[in-house]
Amino acid sequence: MSTSSDLADRLQSYLGPAGVITDWRDLESYAVDWRKLFPGKPACVVRPNSTEQVAQVVRICREAGVPIVPQGGNTGLAGGAVPDASGTQVVLSLNRMAAIRNVDPIGMTIEAEAGCILKVAQDAASTAGRLLPISLAAEGSATIGGVVAANAGGVNVLRYGMTRNLVLGLEVVLPDGTIANGLRRLRKDNAGYDWKQLFIGSEGTLGVVTAAVLRLLPRPKHSVTALLSVPDPDAALTLFGLAQDDLGDQITAFELISRTSLDLVARHAGLKPPIAEGEWFVLIEAASSLAGLREAAEAMLGSAFEREIALDGVIAESGAQAAQLWALREHVTESEAREGKSVKHDVSVPLTAVPLFLVDVGKALADEVPGTRVNAFGHLGDGNIHYNVLIEDGHDAGAVNRIVHDVVASHGGSISAEHGIGQYRVGELVRYRSSVEMELARKLKLALDPQGLLNPGKVLSP
Amino acid sequence: MSTSSDLADRLQSYLGPAGVITDWRDLESYAVDWRKLFPGKPACVVRPNSTEQVAQVVRICREAGVPIVPQGGNTGLAGGAVPDASGTQVVLSLNRMAAIRNVDPIGMTIEAEAGCILKVAQDAASTAGRLLPISLAAEGSATIGGVVAANAGGVNVLRYGMTRNLVLGLEVVLPDGTIANGLRRLRKDNAGYDWKQLFIGSEGTLGVVTAAVLRLLPRPKHSVTALLSVPDPDAALTLFGLAQDDLGDQITAFELISRTSLDLVARHAGLKPPIAEGEWFVLIEAASSLAGLREAAEAMLGSAFEREIALDGVIAESGAQAAQLWALREHVTESEAREGKSVKHDVSVPLTAVPLFLVDVGKALADEVPGTRVNAFGHLGDGNIHYNVLIEDGHDAGAVNRIVHDVVASHGGSISAEHGIGQYRVGELVRYRSSVEMELARKLKLALDPQGLLNPGKVLSP
Repeated sequence: MSTSSDLADRLQSYLGPAGVITDWRDLESYAVDWRKLFPGKPACVVRPNSTEQVAQVVRICREAGVPIVPQGGNTGLAGGAVPDASGTQVVLSLNRMAAIRNVDPIGMTIEAEAGCILKVAQDAASTAGRLLPISLAAEGSATIGGVVAANAGGVNVLRYGMTRNLVLGLEVVLPDGTIANGLRRLRKDNAGYDWKQLFIGSEGTLGVVTAAVLRLLPRPKHSVTALLSVPDPDAALTLFGLAQDDLGDQITAFELISRTSLDLVARHAGLKPPIAEGEWFVLIEAASSLAGLREAAEAMLGSAFEREIALDGVIAESGAQAAQLWALREHVTESEAREGKSVKHDVSVPLTAVPLFLVDVGKALADEVPGTRVNAFGHLGDGNIHYNVLIEDGHDAGAVNRIVHDVVASHGGSISAEHGIGQYRVGELVRYRSSVEMELARKLKLALDPQGLLNPGKVLSP
Repeated sequence: MSTSSDLADRLQSYLGPAGVITDWRDLESYAVDWRKLFPGKPACVVRPNSTEQVAQVVRICREAGVPIVPQGGNTGLAGGAVPDASGTQVVLSLNRMAAIRNVDPIGMTIEAEAGCILKVAQDAASTAGRLLPISLAAEGSATIGGVVAANAGGVNVLRYGMTRNLVLGLEVVLPDGTIANGLRRLRKDNAGYDWKQLFIGSEGTLGVVTAAVLRLLPRPKHSVTALLSVPDPDAALTLFGLAQDDLGDQITAFELISRTSLDLVARHAGLKPPIAEGEWFVLIEAASSLAGLREAAEAMLGSAFEREIALDGVIAESGAQAAQLWALREHVTESEAREGKSVKHDVSVPLTAVPLFLVDVGKALADEVPGTRVNAFGHLGDGNIHYNVLIEDGHDAGAVNRIVHDVVASHGGSISAEHGIGQYRVGELVRYRSSVEMELARKLKLALDPQGLLNPGKVLSP
């Protein structure tokens, strides 16, 4: 403990009183993730206010042999940004580095510091007439640094890709305390290894993201939202193909929702879908700068009804109606929580494997853990299903988890589509990724962080 | 030499006679790049026909301590895929691994082996009603493996991004001869480090790409092509902003062409632009699945004329007319070659810096190497300018090169937007990238290829 407090003193003498938190009452929001699944205990929290300060903090901690846990908005779902319970890890919060350095509506870029709140960056882009298309539930608290470090997904991935696709430049403090400045605003740059890719999605285990240049997109002027009932997930896939044919890359969202999901929303949120019948539903949104989007969408849906790949449907007549349709989707998670205990999975499989995946995992669960109920919904257009299993007392959550992930693996899928590994899935990653891939990851970790001081125990077991 | 021929024997006994080429007459097309700038001399050329054979070749060469140069279609512009002149390097050609393993028009993916010709993959996607949007001059010879290893750009980057944005899965033989199989067909996968990013664009220096899963896109049904004269590059930028506002992300190309470029095309290719006057020209193409594209484009151009950011213009009335407009752009390089000697640059700067970059570099050249003429054209929408300088006898090509790249650096640009570093720009990369970035690159190289046997001397100096 004396080492810890010596270190806190050294950090405080460098950063000043505002730069270090040691009082337990002020530490708590940094110590535990927001779902309260991973309670940790930091040695202290440091809050540098410049890249140079971040670098110096990393050097001081390195000299002392003390592990660092980088943290943004602490909105992660895998415990990747909170310390362990040893009391020896330093949380490095980026929340005092929150400036937007530049918005360029012609060059279509935004440069922001790591601690900038995602929503603030979205608003700055919007004010400049452009779109920062990273959009997720936690956008009011999540930070640019966290979004980059986690390679965040969200509701616009189908059209705009994951965060990785939008990162043009990155500034990173390396584990040895040097600053790698790659804050270039270039759409094309094939001059040498694209090292920034390593840090995107590596959850703070290879370096501390301190600033990023992100790509902006044009803001679409027209949008169409529709809710449809479909005979089954196979028909939903055929409908997806038809939508690609007729609306092209203007489709923003293609969400699959099960009857169970809508029943939960009706029961707990009091929201009723405008379509009474059906076992499976699809929520489609498309947006474009071109007029003629709605006509094309109506023609596409007409053809879907004719081919009986859609059975019933509603097109929103206003923004308010579109919001009502989205509310059905957005209340699924909360309604599930009110229903009782569940085992959650954020998985992806190849798009065309989704129907068979649903059948296979349903069968395996019915056989091996009878009495559970399935609440499946998610981003069908991305092959990303939130496959949540409602359990009762006596059901083995670990067994459920294993069954779902084994079926995911059998379809060539991923056990973490967008939430990352953090500390939550570290053990499972080893089970589902090949030893060659794990060895490659360990080589990269060792090359960049030979002392293992950066976010140890996350992504890779220590 | 006996070692070389021993090795060739070992390789031949493993691969069979079709798998190894040692006769000089058959070696030549593998030994020299197609521009004949980098004549090399391989120990031999090996042509494995499976991933396992590639792995075994790498193991055999490793044991013998012999360097390997991976090669696809040998269409690179930086000498990255040809051996040095020592006679000791083995060229590993992927051209017998050319299968398309799968095309999925609903899941929107194509899986192909490294030696598959880009054009063949494009056609397979097209037959399935989808678009593989990587398109470049060498597409009839370039291979999927080469395109991935080079992170190829081309004419669709503005809309679809570089090759990196389209790679979903990758299979790579590592320098130690193990096979890393990441051939996943997933749109979202945040399970561990995304190691495949390291190999994309690293020009065969970290591993041998043996197969890839690429993302497909919908095929647009409508397109519009227009050639405009603009007062200056600043106006071209303003026009770009207007086009983003009005046509959104449906713009496929936004090319800047100088008067000099069109004069060269008129003189040497006999093609005359349909617009007589002007110093600067913009070629715009947009494509969409939605009708209404042309009306939106016409309205946008009307507003551009009104605001005097465009002076004169022609919209193609047919596919043939569109092809005529594109022919003006496509004949620039060839016409330049007929004019005489030139020093070529493939540079990028932030989009909004392009006008000032053009002014700055023009001034510096006029001051320091008087009498040269500038042929500037390129992908303005990507900030990527092919800034070529026509020189006469007595002009110092090295000085021209240095001046252009120094001005690029002063604007935060890149000395290689899409062509890569290969052996051509190895020395310059060290000059223009920070020591921290170079050190990071060397760490990665050392971690993956400690013996330095994979494509030595490319990207990084040996």
